[in-house]
Amino acid sequence: MGLGMDRLELEMMVAGGVCAPEGFLAGGITCGIKRPDLPKKDLALIVSEQPCTAAAVFTKNQVAAPPVRLSRIRLAEGAPRAIVANSGNANAATGEQGMRDAEEMCALAAAELGLRPEDVFVCSTGIIGKPVPMERIRSRFGDLRQALHRNGSEAAAEAIMTSDTRPKEFAVEIEGGIRIGGIAKGAGMIRPDMATMLAFLTTDAAVDRDTLQAATVEAVKQSFNCITIDGDTSTNDTVIVLANGVKGSVSREAFQRGLNRVMLELAHRIVADGERVTKFVTVEVKGAKSDADARAVADAVANSNLCKASWNGEDPNWGRILHAVGYAKAEIVEEKVDIFFGALQATRNGLATETPLLDLIEIVRQPKFHVTIDLNLGDGHALVYSSDLSPEYVDFNRREYSLVNQKA
Amino acid sequence: MGLGMDRLELEMMVAGGVCAPEGFLAGGITCGIKRPDLPKKDLALIVSEQPCTAAAVFTKNQVAAPPVRLSRIRLAEGAPRAIVANSGNANAATGEQGMRDAEEMCALAAAELGLRPEDVFVCSTGIIGKPVPMERIRSRFGDLRQALHRNGSEAAAEAIMTSDTRPKEFAVEIEGGIRIGGIAKGAGMIRPDMATMLAFLTTDAAVDRDTLQAATVEAVKQSFNCITIDGDTSTNDTVIVLANGVKGSVSREAFQRGLNRVMLELAHRIVADGERVTKFVTVEVKGAKSDADARAVADAVANSNLCKASWNGEDPNWGRILHAVGYAKAEIVEEKVDIFFGALQATRNGLATETPLLDLIEIVRQPKFHVTIDLNLGDGHALVYSSDLSPEYVDFNRREYSLVNQKA
Repeated sequence: MGLGMDRLELEMMVAGGVCAPEGFLAGGITCGIKRPDLPKKDLALIVSEQPCTAAAVFTKNQVAAPPVRLSRIRLAEGAPRAIVANSGNANAATGEQGMRDAEEMCALAAAELGLRPEDVFVCSTGIIGKPVPMERIRSRFGDLRQALHRNGSEAAAEAIMTSDTRPKEFAVEIEGGIRIGGIAKGAGMIRPDMATMLAFLTTDAAVDRDTLQAATVEAVKQSFNCITIDGDTSTNDTVIVLANGVKGSVSREAFQRGLNRVMLELAHRIVADGERVTKFVTVEVKGAKSDADARAVADAVANSNLCKASWNGEDPNWGRILHAVGYAKAEIVEEKVDIFFGALQATRNGLATETPLLDLIEIVRQPKFHVTIDLNLGDGHALVYSSDLSPEYVDFNRREYSLVNQKA
Repeated sequence: MGLGMDRLELEMMVAGGVCAPEGFLAGGITCGIKRPDLPKKDLALIVSEQPCTAAAVFTKNQVAAPPVRLSRIRLAEGAPRAIVANSGNANAATGEQGMRDAEEMCALAAAELGLRPEDVFVCSTGIIGKPVPMERIRSRFGDLRQALHRNGSEAAAEAIMTSDTRPKEFAVEIEGGIRIGGIAKGAGMIRPDMATMLAFLTTDAAVDRDTLQAATVEAVKQSFNCITIDGDTSTNDTVIVLANGVKGSVSREAFQRGLNRVMLELAHRIVADGERVTKFVTVEVKGAKSDADARAVADAVANSNLCKASWNGEDPNWGRILHAVGYAKAEIVEEKVDIFFGALQATRNGLATETPLLDLIEIVRQPKFHVTIDLNLGDGHALVYSSDLSPEYVDFNRREYSLVNQKA
């Protein structure tokens, strides 16, 4: 019932994150955007030494931050090969000033790199509704360029963190020595809708632009779009993939598989590092009338506050799961629903089984467990990666990133 | 901007809850369903001394509890005049045994009252997935009948409470001395979808069955269907209205207005008494392209964990409201969105206003406040009544009604 047990591991994990593929440099420095008084990295840069093809998907939130809008233009205009990103301020709900600030960030990075502003993507993450403190960033682009390094992926991954507790990077090597690497951040406001949080991927494969975009959309669909922490879709979600072609071409299938693998791993790490998360819960729905129905049921369960609170309490509460299945906008027949925790069946035909409660508790005591819901109506299938909801999550979000307690 | 300030108060509030209208008796007793060791009322009975017309709306959750299914049959079959209800056990996900138990509860009540089982509605609320402890109830129906009283509304309201902290009853007198009264319960798993929680209403007006059903559907739409505590739609939501006609007929308009008033007051009390709720927040959306769009935006904000956590933190975080507006499935234009806390404008055209933060904080420090979102796109309007989300809510729901800690 576990993930990935039915396929061979064709990719080899390698170190180096976004710098694992050849020809990419990365770095991150501390500018005091997050907190002037606390030295935490908050400005990141990734660049390809060679020209690239680029692909990206962005949030579907209708309130899209200026850096998202500008990066959409960059993607349409051409083939950017660098990404500048800051944390601590989302540059969202900042209007024309926000767009000017996003443009200035691209221009400053481009000047240091000897590129055109059109060659640079820009991303921001952090509090919504405050102007970016450009006075703290403007003078630092020389330092940022100097921080660029073949070993700079982790520093860049750190510099995009907000309430994340650890940097997230992952890379694989596929056929022909070709590599795909990435970094990501995200800890709250996580219910991606076609893109998510910030995730930057690089590859030294040669992939044409249309193929890269299609492969990116497909990989996002199977990874970042299958996770939820709190059901809130962000204004700044962005996934960018840069391909510099240094290592030559690759089969479409192998590339897609490798890209899926990196994105899925980063997505899992985002859930596992969700704000005050103690459980990583895979919600699998099968036997639905359609894949869409399966996804609706998985979403209902994975986003139910009451299910998530029960998981935090290590309570194998199948009744709450069944109630969420019941309100999903999908066809279900209560008398056919089976629910499993791990391999143990808690519910058969909508009713409690004889499985001892203590055995079920053993499963939900694990930091990672699998909930399977079989609707027994068809072949529809979906997987969603969720977390528990803790009192500490709420306590954190009543204080952090609040307008009241904002120090910056 | 407050509620109801634009209409005259045509109904007079009166005491007595479901017994305020003439000809109704009610009562509640302690059977040990909730906890054998804790003496709390958990079995309620309401009955009209005369024949009634009846109306009801039930949960749209596809996992409907056996008492919901049986009450649907009762409504279709004829004109019930009594309601038996227990708390502490939802009799949900209990299959054929659950249906036999629901039928037995009706039969036992009917025998005591000299009625047919078809004349009795049955409702249950509490934990899902456990059989009703009929052995604790079966012998108590004589006591339940003896507890029936003209002043028994509050005892009945207490006997349907689960995690509610106080009984909820309300009644009004409209034209011609006609009265409408009700009791309700609900504290968690509250995101009604065409019906909600348990709410039982009575009236001594003469109203034919079709009119009563239509009036009930309309009043529910404006009241119980406009509240949310945690976004979870229950398996047992039921609203029942009994009309015994003792006081004669009434104008359709006055009756509808009175029924709306009682349901809205009970709905508000449910939100205000939500699990570990400290804030009652009215989310009003205007200027939407349609009422449906307005409702989608209001729902997104009213159900956003991040907005609700900010309200708990007394943080006038308009950025989080704007982000939830942005992901609503409705047409919005970021540059046109205005957001108000009380009468103070926090956001104009999607950007921060100059309103001092301390003034906004004053508003969200109140136990009740109003958030208005003007989309400036049309005439669509919606009101949703929400609450904050507290660390204590999550802590409560990781423990209470868990399968692990269940004492009964």
